[in-house]
Amino acid sequence: MSPQETTVRDAGEFGLIHAVTQGRKQPPATLLGPGDDAAVVAAPDGRVVASTDVLVEGVHFRLDWSSAEQVGRKAIAVNLADIAAMGATPTSVLIGLACPSDTPVKVITELTDGMWLEADRAGVGIVGGDMVRADKLVISVTALGDLGGRAPVTRSGARPGDVVAVCGRLGWAAAGLAVLGRGFRSPVGVVNAQRHPEPPYEAGREAADAGATSMIDISDGLLADLGHIAEASEVGIDLETQRLVVPTRLAEVGSALGADPLRWMLTGGEDHALAATFPPFVDLPGEWTRIGAVTMPESGVTVDGKTYEHETGWEHWR
Amino acid sequence: MSPQETTVRDAGEFGLIHAVTQGRKQPPATLLGPGDDAAVVAAPDGRVVASTDVLVEGVHFRLDWSSAEQVGRKAIAVNLADIAAMGATPTSVLIGLACPSDTPVKVITELTDGMWLEADRAGVGIVGGDMVRADKLVISVTALGDLGGRAPVTRSGARPGDVVAVCGRLGWAAAGLAVLGRGFRSPVGVVNAQRHPEPPYEAGREAADAGATSMIDISDGLLADLGHIAEASEVGIDLETQRLVVPTRLAEVGSALGADPLRWMLTGGEDHALAATFPPFVDLPGEWTRIGAVTMPESGVTVDGKTYEHETGWEHWR
Repeated sequence: MSPQETTVRDAGEFGLIHAVTQGRKQPPATLLGPGDDAAVVAAPDGRVVASTDVLVEGVHFRLDWSSAEQVGRKAIAVNLADIAAMGATPTSVLIGLACPSDTPVKVITELTDGMWLEADRAGVGIVGGDMVRADKLVISVTALGDLGGRAPVTRSGARPGDVVAVCGRLGWAAAGLAVLGRGFRSPVGVVNAQRHPEPPYEAGREAADAGATSMIDISDGLLADLGHIAEASEVGIDLETQRLVVPTRLAEVGSALGADPLRWMLTGGEDHALAATFPPFVDLPGEWTRIGAVTMPESGVTVDGKTYEHETGWEHWR
Repeated sequence: MSPQETTVRDAGEFGLIHAVTQGRKQPPATLLGPGDDAAVVAAPDGRVVASTDVLVEGVHFRLDWSSAEQVGRKAIAVNLADIAAMGATPTSVLIGLACPSDTPVKVITELTDGMWLEADRAGVGIVGGDMVRADKLVISVTALGDLGGRAPVTRSGARPGDVVAVCGRLGWAAAGLAVLGRGFRSPVGVVNAQRHPEPPYEAGREAADAGATSMIDISDGLLADLGHIAEASEVGIDLETQRLVVPTRLAEVGSALGADPLRWMLTGGEDHALAATFPPFVDLPGEWTRIGAVTMPESGVTVDGKTYEHETGWEHWR
């Protein structure tokens, strides 16, 4: 049997754990890594930020659309974005992996290669995990982070008059999904944006340091996630589409597919950009861009002062 | 439609999250609970202990053998036991839940009732989670804990001459599995032990404070898990069966099923007792009971000085 054909059943639980953890370098925050009952991670702030996400094959990713490595990158990225959205610095992740017994070990090592690639990009360690048998590939990721003395930036602190801003890509993953859905594999820029997001991890801390009053990571869609801020903060939010510059690439793809690229930017999730509100007149840090304003609660979430007439984002089970 | 027939598809993601989080009381360590991008949990030690487990329907539990509430209790218990096995105090858990769209909401609320029941028993909060769609019910749990200034008790500190001790039940879950496998539903004591373990959470801290040199939670089976300590510590371990008192109930069940109850105690997993090694002549704390001694590495793991001739425990995918 060639190594490519070795399955997780052949390798066994402990062989598999060895294959995915051996030779990995942990950052200094990992005080005790994989291999014991639990990991130990530095939490110098005295508080720990924690978030968990589950990704299911056929629902959140398709191995015929994405490589296992891309799925691994995505699984880590979506979760670290949640930590960043609190204004915290991600420190570590734990992985739960359920997969069929006949899954090639190669798929699992590529998946975990992608996980380590994204973890390294963010400077975090994969400190623990669990691998079990299931009919479909299911990945759960829990990320931990440190606030470094900052107050957590929640969804509930926006006030009327605040500036609404984003950092990161909007609409790229949705455009990529539209391309893949039509059976195309290019342009690679938007297709890869769908395969794995590149959230701006640093931007969360920057926003917190600049006094952001609320923040969220855009997973469901810009309007839907701003709706979560509006609801939690009991405010309205108005987006100014003139401030949302449609990237040339999205305009091209929209034109080719007969789709509205602005709609992708307003309603497409999965890019995991960050959206935040800031006090009026604040200097926006780094790459943060103003896209609208916080209004009175009775206004709701509007686009150029009007209610948006399309579905605003993604909800499970609907 | 009766409330019993409402499915997770009907309820929607946000309705479901509301149903399982509303009215729950968080312990003081939960600084920010569910509802934002991430939770914030107190980590006064400056380090956080973290462990993750995945439970799959049909592999780790069966909803025809256990109630959803029992499955929820088990999911939390197995993970908190890992935190206890480091000598830490569990502080919080995060839940990932994947389930079919036609799952009755009632199943999910019973499941989460069980999770809260066990969480409350351990004094921890359910601080966050994710709910997604899948073909089968898959539960991932990540537990966090605080060391309170103690050094983590790993698997690798056992030394020849140390005392081997356990705290908690041995063989009960295996006996329950044997009973259920024959189609019986009683005796309820062993059957419930299979449905949800009752790990001795406090015993982990007690052992750490008493100077335990190594510790593990017994999930695969006593001999298998002591094997992990032996391997990590590069020692041998000898169990003295005369010290393993077979409980009357296990003897009865063994007699009724024609099975050896001692074998359940030596190889049965899922009770999530704790096993630890202590320096010679230490006064064992609380309910800890001596069951053997740490020997030289070349001896391996033995029972009454001899190699054990049966399978020593459970391994996935085999």
